Amino acid sequence: MHRAQIIGATGYGGLGILELLLGHPDFEVRSIVARDDAGKRISDVYPHLTDRCDLVVQAPDDSQVGADCDIVVFATPDRVSQGYASGLADAGVRFIDYSGDFRFASADDYARYAERHPSIGDAAHAAEGLLGRAVYGVSELNHERIASAPIVGNPGCFAVGIILGLAPLFADGLVADGTVAVDGLTGSSGAGKKPAPLQHFSHLNDNVVPYRVLSHQHVVEAEQTLGRLGMASGATIDFVPHLLGTTRGILSTMHATLSRSVSREALVDRYRNFFRGQPFVRVLDVPPTLKGTLGSNYCDISLTVSQDGKRVVVMSSIDNLMKGQSGSAMQNMNLMFGLDAAAGLERGPLYP
Amino acid sequence: MHRAQIIGATGYGGLGILELLLGHPDFEVRSIVARDDAGKRISDVYPHLTDRCDLVVQAPDDSQVGADCDIVVFATPDRVSQGYASGLADAGVRFIDYSGDFRFASADDYARYAERHPSIGDAAHAAEGLLGRAVYGVSELNHERIASAPIVGNPGCFAVGIILGLAPLFADGLVADGTVAVDGLTGSSGAGKKPAPLQHFSHLNDNVVPYRVLSHQHVVEAEQTLGRLGMASGATIDFVPHLLGTTRGILSTMHATLSRSVSREALVDRYRNFFRGQPFVRVLDVPPTLKGTLGSNYCDISLTVSQDGKRVVVMSSIDNLMKGQSGSAMQNMNLMFGLDAAAGLERGPLYP
Amino acid sequence: MHRAQIIGATGYGGLGILELLLGHPDFEVRSIVARDDAGKRISDVYPHLTDRCDLVVQAPDDSQVGADCDIVVFATPDRVSQGYASGLADAGVRFIDYSGDFRFASADDYARYAERHPSIGDAAHAAEGLLGRAVYGVSELNHERIASAPIVGNPGCFAVGIILGLAPLFADGLVADGTVAVDGLTGSSGAGKKPAPLQHFSHLNDNVVPYRVLSHQHVVEAEQTLGRLGMASGATIDFVPHLLGTTRGILSTMHATLSRSVSREALVDRYRNFFRGQPFVRVLDVPPTLKGTLGSNYCDISLTVSQDGKRVVVMSSIDNLMKGQSGSAMQNMNLMFGLDAAAGLERGPLYP
Amino acid sequence: MHRAQIIGATGYGGLGILELLLGHPDFEVRSIVARDDAGKRISDVYPHLTDRCDLVVQAPDDSQVGADCDIVVFATPDRVSQGYASGLADAGVRFIDYSGDFRFASADDYARYAERHPSIGDAAHAAEGLLGRAVYGVSELNHERIASAPIVGNPGCFAVGIILGLAPLFADGLVADGTVAVDGLTGSSGAGKKPAPLQHFSHLNDNVVPYRVLSHQHVVEAEQTLGRLGMASGATIDFVPHLLGTTRGILSTMHATLSRSVSREALVDRYRNFFRGQPFVRVLDVPPTLKGTLGSNYCDISLTVSQDGKRVVVMSSIDNLMKGQSGSAMQNMNLMFGLDAAAGLERGPLYP
Repeated sequence: MHRAQIIGATGYGGLGILELLLGHPDFEVRSIVARDDAGKRISDVYPHLTDRCDLVVQAPDDSQVGADCDIVVFATPDRVSQGYASGLADAGVRFIDYSGDFRFASADDYARYAERHPSIGDAAHAAEGLLGRAVYGVSELNHERIASAPIVGNPGCFAVGIILGLAPLFADGLVADGTVAVDGLTGSSGAGKKPAPLQHFSHLNDNVVPYRVLSHQHVVEAEQTLGRLGMASGATIDFVPHLLGTTRGILSTMHATLSRSVSREALVDRYRNFFRGQPFVRVLDVPPTLKGTLGSNYCDISLTVSQDGKRVVVMSSIDNLMKGQSGSAMQNMNLMFGLDAAAGLERGPLYP
Repeated sequence: MHRAQIIGATGYGGLGILELLLGHPDFEVRSIVARDDAGKRISDVYPHLTDRCDLVVQAPDDSQVGADCDIVVFATPDRVSQGYASGLADAGVRFIDYSGDFRFASADDYARYAERHPSIGDAAHAAEGLLGRAVYGVSELNHERIASAPIVGNPGCFAVGIILGLAPLFADGLVADGTVAVDGLTGSSGAGKKPAPLQHFSHLNDNVVPYRVLSHQHVVEAEQTLGRLGMASGATIDFVPHLLGTTRGILSTMHATLSRSVSREALVDRYRNFFRGQPFVRVLDVPPTLKGTLGSNYCDISLTVSQDGKRVVVMSSIDNLMKGQSGSAMQNMNLMFGLDAAAGLERGPLYP
Repeated sequence: MHRAQIIGATGYGGLGILELLLGHPDFEVRSIVARDDAGKRISDVYPHLTDRCDLVVQAPDDSQVGADCDIVVFATPDRVSQGYASGLADAGVRFIDYSGDFRFASADDYARYAERHPSIGDAAHAAEGLLGRAVYGVSELNHERIASAPIVGNPGCFAVGIILGLAPLFADGLVADGTVAVDGLTGSSGAGKKPAPLQHFSHLNDNVVPYRVLSHQHVVEAEQTLGRLGMASGATIDFVPHLLGTTRGILSTMHATLSRSVSREALVDRYRNFFRGQPFVRVLDVPPTLKGTLGSNYCDISLTVSQDGKRVVVMSSIDNLMKGQSGSAMQNMNLMFGLDAAAGLERGPLYP
Repeated sequence: MHRAQIIGATGYGGLGILELLLGHPDFEVRSIVARDDAGKRISDVYPHLTDRCDLVVQAPDDSQVGADCDIVVFATPDRVSQGYASGLADAGVRFIDYSGDFRFASADDYARYAERHPSIGDAAHAAEGLLGRAVYGVSELNHERIASAPIVGNPGCFAVGIILGLAPLFADGLVADGTVAVDGLTGSSGAGKKPAPLQHFSHLNDNVVPYRVLSHQHVVEAEQTLGRLGMASGATIDFVPHLLGTTRGILSTMHATLSRSVSREALVDRYRNFFRGQPFVRVLDVPPTLKGTLGSNYCDISLTVSQDGKRVVVMSSIDNLMKGQSGSAMQNMNLMFGLDAAAGLERGPLYP
């Protein structure tokens, strides 16, 4: 059994990986750490865990981060794992981080992200020297490098759906001007557990709220990743996130002009080949739906080409807390430990 | 035009009465006062008011409560209006209060409520001498006294639905032992505008959350009101409030044993007679629904009697922000100024 | 009092205009006609109308369409009003139609629409000779012609939000290639009252379902209208409608490349000038939300320009049953009878 | 591997047991049968099953019910399994039925149910002789008999929550007069996959709709089961089901007068002892919530006793499609084949 430690265990991200690890045949959770609710049993924080887990939440200072474990999962906000990274690297403990701290290959790339981020004041990275050893955790693109990575930067939830949805197009140089208009529709849970005005039920229920129009920070990693794929030469993602009155899920609708006319059939074939062998990408014949992936680790993708063959619409659906967060982390951890990518991730979508 | 001042104008209660007054032919809003967002235009706080109202929110200390107005509406938490009550009484300014401060006829009655309330520490009333001059604002029961009242204690949202639903039964002494089991289903907006864990979207969406089981403070005013009606001799309401994943509305389902066998037809007749002339109580032939009153001031009521004629189920539906709060306040203000009870309240339910 | 007759009165469209007319100071409803539920009181079909309207639904054959009225409202599917149009024209009775039957200026334009429509088999129009006398009912663009029109073709719900959102850009020739990528998010009520798999609660709740990707019929009227405005020379709308788990509302997010660089400030000014004097278009400083227009006749619009000034995102929000349907019809009827455009439409958004 | 056949495989009940069996280590699905969508792959009917199951739906006449299998699951409406029962009994094939066909021990008991059922015209049972060999499938009460039963009548969804919530009280003779007032709150999925007015999204969203007030057919099995437990002498359940705008879940709130004063602590102890060893009943210290059991097979229960110790409120929460239907069926099938009761049912609640 591989031993895991979860930092930030009482947020939705920590809860997600905790539940996946509890059901995983090859991992055991050795300790759960969080500032909030330290000292409580996790089943008192989350009553739905009653009889399933009675670990006690440890305060960060009660626990030596990285002790007695083979991997640390930081389900924490930006700028937290940076502070522990060198110590873990020195101790030879691998870790995976949910924030933007280790998603970027260079300090320059990180700076562009940090400047865009609404709550990061300082664009300098506290563990700049380790960025080169971290791998960006979109499992389908980087599985080989993830397998041997000491550090994995788990991708942003919106970025997962956009990157998987557009990767074949960019890799083949099919996007005219590298420009894509993307509308992302997300449930409330991406904003986490902390009550806030935007996620207040009376405000969000039955509502649609566009926010950070053309300025969301996840675009940076999507543009950097897609713009460097295969025949691509840069990417511009005009991205508008919309908060919906639903709890889970991200549906991304992406509009591009094709650099040359291609039929829908040819594109679908290309997509299926591109993702062959990847257990969690499904290229559907019908538009994906939010509930079609709910609670599972799937990314469902579908395409439509305009009648004149000049423009394409790609749609992707993921569960933002699974493929968009803890599911990708679990998949990455499987790769890091040489396990089947789908281990512990068999749970299908909850429908209806 | 009667001049109104709203205290606590930026909460949902203040917003509700503001919008009703803006559309009322006989009232004008002279000032809106609130601690939160003081200095902002109300349409910046609530963008849906753009082009409808551009009043600026005044801080409580910028405004002399009760100045330049014929009526003050306190859309404030418990223990706020108590502090201003004597001053207003001395100045001869009438007021209506949304909290429990003036719902009770005596200090003893108030104390029982205050002890039950989750956030009132002190059961003593700061304006005890004025309690006798205040009228409890269930318009249908107390319209004559409200018309001449200097102070109206607007009823609690759950209490409105329970009292209107059970008043004819208690008045006729039909409830065996005076005991009724009541399940109340409420939308999130009753808890107000402030983000909180129970009203966090990711928690509440698709959820039902029972709370304050057998201990909700609104029961006190319901028991005191019903237990003193006509042939009643006391009332015991076993009340379980349930928070639902919906924004507005309260549906109350009430189970009682009848003290003597009565047919459904006879009871329906009795209810229709009891509420004759009251514009907002509708006794339906089908079960009421939450959306059947949404956005309106109606209280819809329906009854079912068991086959043996021994037990009765009464259901009532109201919009908690209308008949359960600002709509009742508007109706009471109409009565206080000798206007038609329904003035400014013509808006029907929003369906679908 | 102007006398109105509603055909198709028991659907959501008929219900919408019925409720607006009931509250209108200058109209009276003389008869309501529908195949479904004929013979019933409308308050038995819709219990929320209890005490508000007790008209009896007449079967189409019991009623002479157009008799005893000054205006007929066809809240009916495509191909219904075509059959009555000549008779009404001969009798000099004006009418407004909710379907696509009279939205097009020529048989050619109509044919392009009919071919795209999922349920119209025959692209020929049964009253082709009357198309030239009908006016397309986007009130803000055609108010003068509507005032004297014998026939008004009420616009499609998606088309309203797209056309109002993009009209200033097209009028000024600011859209590069005339191409706009549009994602429309709609509540369920646009599909009407009839139960169907897509609108089945267990399927739609918490879901997002893209449909008719790049093939929705409302695009035809939007392209024809926008492409002929001012300096425009054609329009291509890449439109993806998404069905959401909400009842009312359409939020449209529209992405275009600007033909020349323009600042956000300049565009906002242009929009405000363009819609000056129009009571229902609000150009906001913040993104519009679905609930910001709920239950009202507003169309809220907001814009964002990319940092390089080359691309623009326009967002618009309407209530699909109001500005997207019955509200626009009421506004058009006001214009047709020389009344204030906003008469009977004072109801503000229901928030929260 | 035990071989299973599912009849009625394309409804929500059939889907539920199909997905459980697909993930079960000891069962294989040999054939899926349904009238609707026969000839289609199940993943075309339910796209979320893509890559998970590609069985083809067989028409009832293409398949010999009971052939090539060890157990048949009838996820069908009332009166279907009755017709096949004798044939299966003769062939020695065990079966479990989701309808009321085999929930009752005698023709008299069945008749009382059938008379209450809204769509059963004939109260006579077509396989009356087999009723005595069928066991009522509330696993926690009847596990030993289920283990050897040739026929299991899977319980009604409401009945599961009520029976588990009240069984210890009735067994101990603690319910005064045997009378309990129960309000049941249910999601839409209990009504199945077929579009219908009550489950039409525009009607049900944000709504609460009481129905079959004091007349729901599930009460019959609850009264018969509870009224015959231990020290009980009959049961009267005053039951009001309420349809909510949510997809899954049943929360039941049950009010009773105690026949003698008992403390909450004593009752909680009694409940925990009563259900000791049962893997899916959790007696919580806080009120259960709908989402606390979502997607899992748990039944969460909590109790509150009035201050005077005279009255009790019991609340239970289940997922109506799991513990209320397919989860109970799976648990019963585990018992029938001598497996661990929890096999294949490890999936925890999906929260948030």
